[in-house]
Amino acid sequence: MKLFLKIRFNGTGFSGYQVQRNARTVQGELNRATADLFGYNCDICGCSRTDAGVHAEEFFITVSRRKSDELLTDIDLANIPRALNVRLPEDISVVSASYTDGNFHPRYAVKKKTYVYRILNSPERDPFLLHRVWHYPKRIDNEGIKEMNDAAKRFVGTFDFSSFMAAGSKIEDATRTVYGASVTTRGSIIEFRVAADGFLYNMVRIMCGTLLEIGIGKREASDISYIIEKKDRRFAGATAPAEGLYLEHVEY
Amino acid sequence: MKLFLKIRFNGTGFSGYQVQRNARTVQGELNRATADLFGYNCDICGCSRTDAGVHAEEFFITVSRRKSDELLTDIDLANIPRALNVRLPEDISVVSASYTDGNFHPRYAVKKKTYVYRILNSPERDPFLLHRVWHYPKRIDNEGIKEMNDAAKRFVGTFDFSSFMAAGSKIEDATRTVYGASVTTRGSIIEFRVAADGFLYNMVRIMCGTLLEIGIGKREASDISYIIEKKDRRFAGATAPAEGLYLEHVEY
Repeated sequence: MKLFLKIRFNGTGFSGYQVQRNARTVQGELNRATADLFGYNCDICGCSRTDAGVHAEEFFITVSRRKSDELLTDIDLANIPRALNVRLPEDISVVSASYTDGNFHPRYAVKKKTYVYRILNSPERDPFLLHRVWHYPKRIDNEGIKEMNDAAKRFVGTFDFSSFMAAGSKIEDATRTVYGASVTTRGSIIEFRVAADGFLYNMVRIMCGTLLEIGIGKREASDISYIIEKKDRRFAGATAPAEGLYLEHVEY
Repeated sequence: MKLFLKIRFNGTGFSGYQVQRNARTVQGELNRATADLFGYNCDICGCSRTDAGVHAEEFFITVSRRKSDELLTDIDLANIPRALNVRLPEDISVVSASYTDGNFHPRYAVKKKTYVYRILNSPERDPFLLHRVWHYPKRIDNEGIKEMNDAAKRFVGTFDFSSFMAAGSKIEDATRTVYGASVTTRGSIIEFRVAADGFLYNMVRIMCGTLLEIGIGKREASDISYIIEKKDRRFAGATAPAEGLYLEHVEY
């Protein structure tokens, strides 16, 4: 039996999800809070290894007792989110709690993940969206948005996405299936949303940086298929900054 | 000639709008940035004296040269927002700039101001809305929201709002005209929006605290008229915290 928690976090103040020495991480905070609540050290497993500054509107973790199959707590499941939240910093929130099988792994069991990347496209910054969007001041017109959306559609399918993976990443197979991708606007926010069975390192940020170059007319929508074919990082655009990226939805 | 600026600010990091010794204020930051850009000290006048922690989605200021009618700058008006934003901290943003008459006062000239107060009504906090809402975890049902909205309507009209003014405030005439007031929901956010020709000290926050007591059934919507009639702060509800309050719109 493992505890299965749905959480949310604002990535601004964290050096990413995964625990590191001498750095503030989401997992580090969860380790501390669960040990304090349950009275023993727990193993925490996350659904994704998000980078420094990346946000999660939805993120799943399992909590299990270190070196034991049993999770011993007499705390009612319904009270666990509140009990953990009082022990966690305010930039993490436990939304709900349930139990799952001891063999369940929250990363390997993922069927589909959706990320959204937000660009603030306005001449001046927005004090309410600090570290929450990529501020791109030069205006992208409706034609540019349409081009970006056309380009995004070309990511859909099963491809070797090596061109959209950070240079130097070690991975055996860069093939991923993208189920959907689109570019839409909401006021002065441009949203690039992409769903896939898995993502390579920096994949969404490189996709978004490339789409932006299409939006401003530096490249054409049809370039996407050519870039994918090349299987070489150098053919894609710049990596968009972490602060605009959100893990939005995880399906099991 | 005065410079007339539309700005926005996230109030979290400020001890309010108005300049104070040894405290970080919006006006203090504007003083610094304008002196740096124009090369002389300016008089900055704001449209409202917002409290510590209160936000402004829209706020107007005038900038004039101290002890002079002339504002000497050869900077193109279109470039002023950008030039000030690079000199201002990221929690303030200058949105647009124009010129106004030397006699114009951004506070006295206001015809109508709209405030919105946001309550997050969900069991657990939201890391993306820290210091941006009042988190009230106990659920207010649809009936409660309807009661709050019915109650809000009773604020509309010209009344002596002494009951909705912080105790000890010195003011000659507490009569204000409320043009509109409503309570609506957006997901798990409850929004109380109120427009008036002017507001007394803590007026929106006391109104909101009182409405919440109606939402949870501690009082009835019809109590509002009775509380107004009493002209006594002790009859209204608690003052809601500053962090949920936004100056949303200013009309001249």
